Amino acid sequence: MKSFGQGFNAVVVGASGGLGRAFVEALLGDPALGGLLACSRSDPGFGDPRAAWQRLDLEDEATIAEAAKAAEARLGPLHLVIVASGLLHDGAGLQPEKTWRALEAEALERAYKVNAVGPALLAKHVLPCLDRGRKSAFAVLTARVGSISDNRLGGWYAYRASKAAANMLVRTLSIELARRNPAALCVALHPGTVDTALSRPFQRGVPDGKLFSPAGSAGHLLEVLDRLGPDDSGQFFAWDGQRIPF
Amino acid sequence: MKSFGQGFNAVVVGASGGLGRAFVEALLGDPALGGLLACSRSDPGFGDPRAAWQRLDLEDEATIAEAAKAAEARLGPLHLVIVASGLLHDGAGLQPEKTWRALEAEALERAYKVNAVGPALLAKHVLPCLDRGRKSAFAVLTARVGSISDNRLGGWYAYRASKAAANMLVRTLSIELARRNPAALCVALHPGTVDTALSRPFQRGVPDGKLFSPAGSAGHLLEVLDRLGPDDSGQFFAWDGQRIPF
Repeated sequence: MKSFGQGFNAVVVGASGGLGRAFVEALLGDPALGGLLACSRSDPGFGDPRAAWQRLDLEDEATIAEAAKAAEARLGPLHLVIVASGLLHDGAGLQPEKTWRALEAEALERAYKVNAVGPALLAKHVLPCLDRGRKSAFAVLTARVGSISDNRLGGWYAYRASKAAANMLVRTLSIELARRNPAALCVALHPGTVDTALSRPFQRGVPDGKLFSPAGSAGHLLEVLDRLGPDDSGQFFAWDGQRIPF
Repeated sequence: MKSFGQGFNAVVVGASGGLGRAFVEALLGDPALGGLLACSRSDPGFGDPRAAWQRLDLEDEATIAEAAKAAEARLGPLHLVIVASGLLHDGAGLQPEKTWRALEAEALERAYKVNAVGPALLAKHVLPCLDRGRKSAFAVLTARVGSISDNRLGGWYAYRASKAAANMLVRTLSIELARRNPAALCVALHPGTVDTALSRPFQRGVPDGKLFSPAGSAGHLLEVLDRLGPDDSGQFFAWDGQRIPF
């Protein structure tokens, strides 16, 4: 992460998930890392003194505000905030819909709350903590299936709609961020299909070599973030650095 | 509405709003109209025997299911379903946000419920009622500010996110609709800035000649719908027939 400079401070939200944990581990392996705050609902137990943990539940704004305060108090100005949480299925009411007959208000709203509202509330509390003097980035992991124009298969209504909304929120945040902190950027990222609990039921049909390990995907996305500048703010990038249309 | 054929049946949802009422009136003036069901939370009282009214609350799926049944029982197969309701501000907690500091979970969720979940639930119940033998259309009024790539001004977080999600839902529905009923289409429409209660606080800066009366906007959109075919399904069109990028 050369472009973030020596001693950059990072916050990973969703740090107990497959991809979130991989981001924490990759960042801990970066000699330029200053401090890191790993946030999630339950303590993943990283066992590295540089990875402090803070409870954060994206469905509870008070915990988000607390975490932002804790991050600033512990680390100072932030340089990289990654939202790696996401909800596609919850083993209960929320299942990717194969047909409109399966549309349910409660499932649509629950996916929205976690995938769109949560990242927006996080932005509200952490964007003011981004360093004003050098490069900093706020990155939300959405997904290619959140691209409206790229949608050719259909289905997965609640997830797709929540991720398209998250993309819109990122875009809207980027416009305000450009006015308040021109050195910062705010982007949506597509991690590829990653071998995690989220994608496990849906990995059939993924082409050879395109099912990434969490470490592989986190590595790709950190490289992408390393290359991006403020001019890229408000856009949607895949793991290979390609821009995805909205 | 020549392309819909003689005796076409229409349903207008949000019929008590400025634009919904204008759609009902324009349709009643069309000699090809068969029957019409006007749906809204409260009875707008059209006083025309061809405009039956049915209570429908987009936040209450039971009333949506009831309305779809009533439409089918009264009219038979449907040819045009227009969702003309929308929520930008409610005089209470929901106000278009000028800054991320104003982001509130409750307002984000409320806009989503009305602008995205409601139309999706309506689709679930009325798309199976579209005529299989000739042109039919399901149209959701979203808004240009729901275009992610067109967003250059920022702000209005909850409204923008809910409308981008509604566009995604329309797109996803169109893919399933193409498989189930190839003669039908499903589109998102931008009505322009219309002189209604929704836009009234925000009409400053609208260029001369670009603030439409509800009747003018409804007329434009019906002309657009008249020209569209199944190949246009899943797209987003402005009042002048131009495609809007997502």
